[in-house]
Amino acid sequence: MSTSTPANETAMRMLPPGATVGILGGGQLGRMMAMAAAAYGLKTHIFAPDADSPAFEVSGKHSLAGYDDEAALVAFAASVDVVTYEFENIPAESVDLLRRHVPLFPDHMALATTQDRLLEKRFVAALGIPTAPFRDVANRADLAAGLAALGTPAILKTRRFGYDGKGQVKIESADDIDAALAAIGHAPAILEGFVPFEREVSVVGARDRAGGFAAYDVCENVHRHHILDTTTVPSALSAAQCAKAVEAAKRIADALSYVGVLAVEMFVLAGDDSPIIVNEIAPRVHNSGHWTIEGAVTSQFAQHIRAVCGWPLGSTRRNGRVDMRNLIGADIEAWADIVAEPGLHLHLYGKTSARPGRKMGHVTRVLPE
Amino acid sequence: MSTSTPANETAMRMLPPGATVGILGGGQLGRMMAMAAAAYGLKTHIFAPDADSPAFEVSGKHSLAGYDDEAALVAFAASVDVVTYEFENIPAESVDLLRRHVPLFPDHMALATTQDRLLEKRFVAALGIPTAPFRDVANRADLAAGLAALGTPAILKTRRFGYDGKGQVKIESADDIDAALAAIGHAPAILEGFVPFEREVSVVGARDRAGGFAAYDVCENVHRHHILDTTTVPSALSAAQCAKAVEAAKRIADALSYVGVLAVEMFVLAGDDSPIIVNEIAPRVHNSGHWTIEGAVTSQFAQHIRAVCGWPLGSTRRNGRVDMRNLIGADIEAWADIVAEPGLHLHLYGKTSARPGRKMGHVTRVLPE
Repeated sequence: MSTSTPANETAMRMLPPGATVGILGGGQLGRMMAMAAAAYGLKTHIFAPDADSPAFEVSGKHSLAGYDDEAALVAFAASVDVVTYEFENIPAESVDLLRRHVPLFPDHMALATTQDRLLEKRFVAALGIPTAPFRDVANRADLAAGLAALGTPAILKTRRFGYDGKGQVKIESADDIDAALAAIGHAPAILEGFVPFEREVSVVGARDRAGGFAAYDVCENVHRHHILDTTTVPSALSAAQCAKAVEAAKRIADALSYVGVLAVEMFVLAGDDSPIIVNEIAPRVHNSGHWTIEGAVTSQFAQHIRAVCGWPLGSTRRNGRVDMRNLIGADIEAWADIVAEPGLHLHLYGKTSARPGRKMGHVTRVLPE
Repeated sequence: MSTSTPANETAMRMLPPGATVGILGGGQLGRMMAMAAAAYGLKTHIFAPDADSPAFEVSGKHSLAGYDDEAALVAFAASVDVVTYEFENIPAESVDLLRRHVPLFPDHMALATTQDRLLEKRFVAALGIPTAPFRDVANRADLAAGLAALGTPAILKTRRFGYDGKGQVKIESADDIDAALAAIGHAPAILEGFVPFEREVSVVGARDRAGGFAAYDVCENVHRHHILDTTTVPSALSAAQCAKAVEAAKRIADALSYVGVLAVEMFVLAGDDSPIIVNEIAPRVHNSGHWTIEGAVTSQFAQHIRAVCGWPLGSTRRNGRVDMRNLIGADIEAWADIVAEPGLHLHLYGKTSARPGRKMGHVTRVLPE
């Protein structure tokens, strides 16, 4: 599909079955999106730089190329009807190139906002939604001033390219300034004040082309070594707190004119009237939404495919009480025990090497309400 | 995997994630099996003669070759850890060739028995399970004698290669003998007496390597023009009738030392004590089991993959009241209405041409009990 007008501004019809969804990224998220697309009779084309990308196994077409390979990107764009992605760290130049040729959802504004922790925090704060206190850290003086203002402990994070605890360091004392800057390679950063949260939750929701929004029930998450360990739904939050969380996610999605699934990670402080603090926005399907494959009427992957193809959103109704546990690294060795336990749903991503910290799969259980 | 002893007789360990399941047949059943295997981190290799096989789109590897292409079959066998299939009409020579190289489930006995309607009927009857009255029809005299014995109406069916009403003709009067024989091309046949059934049901069940058996709840089926139209679960049968139906399927599976999912189609006569008559055995996943994707804890596709990989069977518990409707030919044109209706699960098979009578997809709805 080649056009001289910005492709996203062209009113896009519902993509029919048989159309091709281009997916940037070949990991487990791309893999599960491709499988959801296939169930709807849509074709997929995965674009990823790693030859052993898990998503290649379940997709009819793939391009093995770097995210900065312009010729490969143009050929990819020409072969698909819409482009989406499994991760937000796509070079801005590649995004600009792609969107000249083919509709891209979620769009470049969602990417630009969420690729940079500082822009993201400013965006959220501008909506009047609580965030952790934060300071822009361009240099050592900024960090010293930020620590003086926010106190310790505080977290220094690179503005870009962080995930699963990568690119961040906890600062316990002002003496740690130099070590902290070294730890993040002196990259442009943001300093975040410590939030004494009681719980971590996320809202996984979707917005369609017409502006409709549908969220799943609030997910309660536990991290281990900065990586998601378990998600439990329903969360322990009150109905009022849940409504507040979903409302924040909806306002974020609306403000971005977002199309697709997004996940908003939040901190919940003690007390039923306490504010809910938005920590991070993921402009994509999210690990804390994996439970929706069996636990909701429409999985987050199917929902994302619906949204980016211009289809109406599906039902986000929950099928029961759900818990999801990630299988990280050597956790995968328990696969035979897991499949022997009735009612456990094993999902493995087809990764060959079970390196420590690597997400190898997940296990979901759905219990009657 | 190459061995000089019959591969199926080698005690097979649980195939680990990362192993490759070979699937003969590239239609929607192979496609949905491949997707189920992928969710478990298993690779698949599809063997099919049609370049536009729907299963190719969701599988990492495929062989495009005829089922009688010995070199291709041997190469296929060498590249996989187990072989299964989506349809029963595989040439016996190909089966014999494959099983010398790699475990094949369900095995050659299940195939030999179910490939031939006459052998199948004799096998079922020998178990003391009711069937329609039947006669071997090798020639015109056999048919005349059969009609005299069984009366009219009766159904003349080719012994081999029939499905969805193909290869069969209804005989209303003894005057139709020659037309009926012509209609089936004078192939070796079986004459079946008319069964005045009230309902059609099927039992979809699985047997694992250790002899464990697990069936889904009895499926009630309605056919239209000899093609499955709808499946509803639970059926209208009494608990006693359901138990009788499941028991018949279990005895069939046990007698075949069956490994994998099988479907047994049955006729139910009026009256709560009436016999349940076995009509046909499908040694594979089955259209009447498609509802299990959302409607049961373990889908028939996942269950089949578990069984053929030596894994324990998953739970067959039902998630609610379920109905499934096939999308045949032009029915697919309603796709946009279907995805707009909350709670309907659309499944499309990625077939490009919606020929009349062609199974293009299905729609499932799960309602609370």
